[in-house]
Amino acid sequence: MISFESDYTNGAHPAILNRFLETNDELLSTYGNDIYSERAKEKIKAACKCPQADVHFLTGGTQTNSIVISTMLADYEAVVAANTGHISAHEAGAIEYTGHKVLTVGQEQGKIKHHELEKYLDNFYSDENHEHMVFPGMVYISHPTEYGTLYSKAELENLSAVCNKYEIPLYMDGARLGYGLMSHDTDVTLADIAKYCDVFYIGGTKVGALCGEAVVFTKNNTPKHFMTMIKQHGALLAKGRLIGVQFDTLFTDDLYFDISRHAIDMAEELKKVLVEKGCRFFIDSPTNQQFVILEDEKLDKLREEVKVSFWEKYDENHTVVRFATSWSTRIEDIEKLRELL
Amino acid sequence: MISFESDYTNGAHPAILNRFLETNDELLSTYGNDIYSERAKEKIKAACKCPQADVHFLTGGTQTNSIVISTMLADYEAVVAANTGHISAHEAGAIEYTGHKVLTVGQEQGKIKHHELEKYLDNFYSDENHEHMVFPGMVYISHPTEYGTLYSKAELENLSAVCNKYEIPLYMDGARLGYGLMSHDTDVTLADIAKYCDVFYIGGTKVGALCGEAVVFTKNNTPKHFMTMIKQHGALLAKGRLIGVQFDTLFTDDLYFDISRHAIDMAEELKKVLVEKGCRFFIDSPTNQQFVILEDEKLDKLREEVKVSFWEKYDENHTVVRFATSWSTRIEDIEKLRELL
Amino acid sequence: MISFESDYTNGAHPAILNRFLETNDELLSTYGNDIYSERAKEKIKAACKCPQADVHFLTGGTQTNSIVISTMLADYEAVVAANTGHISAHEAGAIEYTGHKVLTVGQEQGKIKHHELEKYLDNFYSDENHEHMVFPGMVYISHPTEYGTLYSKAELENLSAVCNKYEIPLYMDGARLGYGLMSHDTDVTLADIAKYCDVFYIGGTKVGALCGEAVVFTKNNTPKHFMTMIKQHGALLAKGRLIGVQFDTLFTDDLYFDISRHAIDMAEELKKVLVEKGCRFFIDSPTNQQFVILEDEKLDKLREEVKVSFWEKYDENHTVVRFATSWSTRIEDIEKLRELL
Amino acid sequence: MISFESDYTNGAHPAILNRFLETNDELLSTYGNDIYSERAKEKIKAACKCPQADVHFLTGGTQTNSIVISTMLADYEAVVAANTGHISAHEAGAIEYTGHKVLTVGQEQGKIKHHELEKYLDNFYSDENHEHMVFPGMVYISHPTEYGTLYSKAELENLSAVCNKYEIPLYMDGARLGYGLMSHDTDVTLADIAKYCDVFYIGGTKVGALCGEAVVFTKNNTPKHFMTMIKQHGALLAKGRLIGVQFDTLFTDDLYFDISRHAIDMAEELKKVLVEKGCRFFIDSPTNQQFVILEDEKLDKLREEVKVSFWEKYDENHTVVRFATSWSTRIEDIEKLRELL
Repeated sequence: MISFESDYTNGAHPAILNRFLETNDELLSTYGNDIYSERAKEKIKAACKCPQADVHFLTGGTQTNSIVISTMLADYEAVVAANTGHISAHEAGAIEYTGHKVLTVGQEQGKIKHHELEKYLDNFYSDENHEHMVFPGMVYISHPTEYGTLYSKAELENLSAVCNKYEIPLYMDGARLGYGLMSHDTDVTLADIAKYCDVFYIGGTKVGALCGEAVVFTKNNTPKHFMTMIKQHGALLAKGRLIGVQFDTLFTDDLYFDISRHAIDMAEELKKVLVEKGCRFFIDSPTNQQFVILEDEKLDKLREEVKVSFWEKYDENHTVVRFATSWSTRIEDIEKLRELL
Repeated sequence: MISFESDYTNGAHPAILNRFLETNDELLSTYGNDIYSERAKEKIKAACKCPQADVHFLTGGTQTNSIVISTMLADYEAVVAANTGHISAHEAGAIEYTGHKVLTVGQEQGKIKHHELEKYLDNFYSDENHEHMVFPGMVYISHPTEYGTLYSKAELENLSAVCNKYEIPLYMDGARLGYGLMSHDTDVTLADIAKYCDVFYIGGTKVGALCGEAVVFTKNNTPKHFMTMIKQHGALLAKGRLIGVQFDTLFTDDLYFDISRHAIDMAEELKKVLVEKGCRFFIDSPTNQQFVILEDEKLDKLREEVKVSFWEKYDENHTVVRFATSWSTRIEDIEKLRELL
Repeated sequence: MISFESDYTNGAHPAILNRFLETNDELLSTYGNDIYSERAKEKIKAACKCPQADVHFLTGGTQTNSIVISTMLADYEAVVAANTGHISAHEAGAIEYTGHKVLTVGQEQGKIKHHELEKYLDNFYSDENHEHMVFPGMVYISHPTEYGTLYSKAELENLSAVCNKYEIPLYMDGARLGYGLMSHDTDVTLADIAKYCDVFYIGGTKVGALCGEAVVFTKNNTPKHFMTMIKQHGALLAKGRLIGVQFDTLFTDDLYFDISRHAIDMAEELKKVLVEKGCRFFIDSPTNQQFVILEDEKLDKLREEVKVSFWEKYDENHTVVRFATSWSTRIEDIEKLRELL
Repeated sequence: MISFESDYTNGAHPAILNRFLETNDELLSTYGNDIYSERAKEKIKAACKCPQADVHFLTGGTQTNSIVISTMLADYEAVVAANTGHISAHEAGAIEYTGHKVLTVGQEQGKIKHHELEKYLDNFYSDENHEHMVFPGMVYISHPTEYGTLYSKAELENLSAVCNKYEIPLYMDGARLGYGLMSHDTDVTLADIAKYCDVFYIGGTKVGALCGEAVVFTKNNTPKHFMTMIKQHGALLAKGRLIGVQFDTLFTDDLYFDISRHAIDMAEELKKVLVEKGCRFFIDSPTNQQFVILEDEKLDKLREEVKVSFWEKYDENHTVVRFATSWSTRIEDIEKLRELL
């Protein structure tokens, strides 16, 4: 059995486990004040080319979205997201649980278009009765998106300009950021993201860590007493070293980027195989998630030997499935897939 | 420098790290459906002698308190705790953030007395205006308490009887449960806890794990769609193996109990040293936390070579400090302390 | 200046003010336990032909939606509404403030179609990952809708059947219920609403009262300790007589129905004038709100003598405006409008 | 039967009902933008001698506390109150429902002592671990207190100084403010309150209105988009005239003060009767609420002809009861009481 089911069925990158072993006997400060968390923060700031950045570590994606959004919004504000955005659809109402609405705008291939956003915000403020409505107070984008697609640098710049015009922060969910940065089809660097986004997170869980996401505030805009609010949300780890050691390892000697590139290289190989075998793509994704439309009978047969993710029904006889590569995908698995398709 | 600062400045028990290494290459189900989480649950149920128990894994103590309390309470209910209870004082308003009040009752050495509780509940229901007040909907106790003290079996039975009379659940915060169970001065077993408590958690973070607490519902009383609410609170780990592997290891061959016993043995040695050196105890603790009143000058000198925790000012010239042992405390450190005191 | 601006720029129906005067010197029980609140409840139950109904009085529409929805939903549940529903768009995030998402489905003329709803619910439960999403736990409809349209008896029956199939309550926002019940184009009675809805409210604020809405639970399904939760939401009036006297008056000798019929009769006269003057209707409304597309220049001129509500821009040169009649609209005003148009 | 049960079993002051009648036919702006609300605000600002004051109208006391406290606090902040404070004990968890803890400090006769408050705040900030605790972000006092007692001008000045030192607002709950201002034993004016408090409310419900409280922000410190948040809390009245007309009436020709003085005069007469009859006072109250310890048998007999409020059990054979006068208390009732005692 081979698996392209997801990028988080695997364990941690071996370098991380080794680092746990090496540092295990040290007695360290708690709650994120340990030396490894400190070092990881410095390395991330350097990688972002953003000296004024303020970095915080959290455990997972939904937690990060929930805390960043609820602590940056005023009570009268909501977050604007694509209707396909993770926070709109697949987070169990976690944002609303904090008291904030998710306002949705249309999207193309998972991406918010800046003119759509501008029109939305214009309409809001030109409505005489807008004081009876919740205010758009932040824009949420994901990069890569839920469909594996990427914003271009120009698109980020444009979105940022609209957000600046309305004085609301632009927030990027980077659960799979490494795979976005290492895509063969991107002109966006980590420094660009730090420049155009007011806050974003660098995903660890899906890029080599056992858990952990690094939130980066880029504009001296960390919410006051952010640590207290992390605790209030039940998200402050007693042993902060758990995430500190992981990110310190990932951001040493470019490991985060190298393992992400590997996943992208594997995804390109995978694409070749899928094209070669005449598979129809549901969407053109430049990252580690590939969405393919398969005939149901063929899918049933394939699943006897290959794990993939159900995405949605395409029509009566076809299904969209997702193939995901990761830092741990092996070229042999792709060869094997070629034989099976 | 030696340290008795806390029981979570250390890393993980080595057996846990080894288990991470051994299982790292396996591709496992996500969100807690992996084989190690399943095995850990079975082992915990067996250890509790409670076949109908339902076990869930969460990351830390505040998170666990927040989720268990808010999902078991109705909107019109509050949790009753000792005024010294962790949730009353030191969790950054995490319970109130979920919309629920913490009602406080008096305590002795950190423990709620069952007749105090009964009087409190009687008074509430005999107040003609109680419908204008928030209802007591759950009782929270910690074991060991914030002062290291323990409930006796009879005390738990009595508290449970009061809770049953008023039909509200008894919840035990077991952040340091192992140290309580292995105390030389307890008649309470894990099975007793499963019998008298409606829900409790077995602490991992402070007893050998890098993170993780095991919530045990004992009376077929898991809140409906508990997993969805865990996600809603931002607490569902994508890689559930992170905690599953740790608890599977801790509950294999009694590791959890053995390492807890070691901490207790060390605490008993520590007590001997403290007594021998004429230290005054602030409270008589039978577990791994020892509270001692030190003259300030002496404390300053000691701190040049020994890390301990500030607890509170005792009087103008004296301070209460906490010495904590753990599964990783070495007898050499205690010998060293003897020399230094 | 004449006004068709809205149905709540006027004061109270004179019979209500008289009743305040008559009862003012009586010392009455507080918090809704007064004799007038009790009588009003009995009269409403009789009018609904629903002896088991449980009636509660609240102050306004948003408050009522917020309390009914949040107290009937479990934490893991959201309310399903049309994307044009008042709670989706115009209540300042009041539902989300209570921690619950508003899920939206498509609509036709403000109404949810039962097969759309069924498809939505089917899709939810057939999604393998639905435990990662918030559960649809209630259906919200408004009657009349935000566009003045009405459900037919058959449509209500069908919606109710879908809700029953999925075991979720059907909730009707009746802010303008009187105007719906007295429409010339409806086959729906108050008894039908009590039969098909699990909970609904009878609007007072827009139908003759100074304030006040009557919530009716029809299936012995009042949330436990509902009064305590009303207080918790800051919505329990100390002088419950304020609303009790008003609803007692409105439901004595069919006053509520008579004044609603007057508004409908006036709306029919208004429609005749609008048709006669060649106005184009934006939507075909059988109730007291009429939506008309006016050429902007004409509108500007009209507004010098007539107050109407801006609804939305239709195109570059046209605007949709709302004319609303009410129990206090006079035939002379309509005659005057005829002259001005 | 005569009644001293409470100050809100009566209706509205007749001048208010007359004003409703006089203004009923006017078509007015909605949501608090009507001319009467505007006038009432100006009159209140003048009465407070505080030109920069910003006045908002809400419906009741719990609602006002909930909205003012939750909109002025940051997420990481709690409100500090006396443990006898209304928000601590008798508001059904309404403050916690908004996500904020009520921190309690000791009191004397319902009042917070400034040195107690200062010690509390000093202790908080000197605790090394205070970032793990919720921050004290506002001080809540009631005037008159729940025991009818009053702060002196010097006491308010001192409390204000402590609040200024810690840069947190001082908030006064004035549910019965009129009775406090007209007490024979006070040196505090409305202007003093506007000077020393950052925000307070002038109670209407218990002082002649059918409903309504006037919130006064005194330091250009109204929370941003306060109206939107009022709506979000379900507290924005469509017909703002309901409260506007009432406060416009109460603050015309000193009506609010005159009717409050009447209640105080009646309370002084009542006190004389109680003293004359040898009643023991539970507390020395200078306002309209008098707390008396009665022998149970005597109380039972009295209650056959006089309504009073149960306050609490004093001992096995005695009960504390409350006698309340109001603007509507008649001297004949007090004469009658003299005969009955």
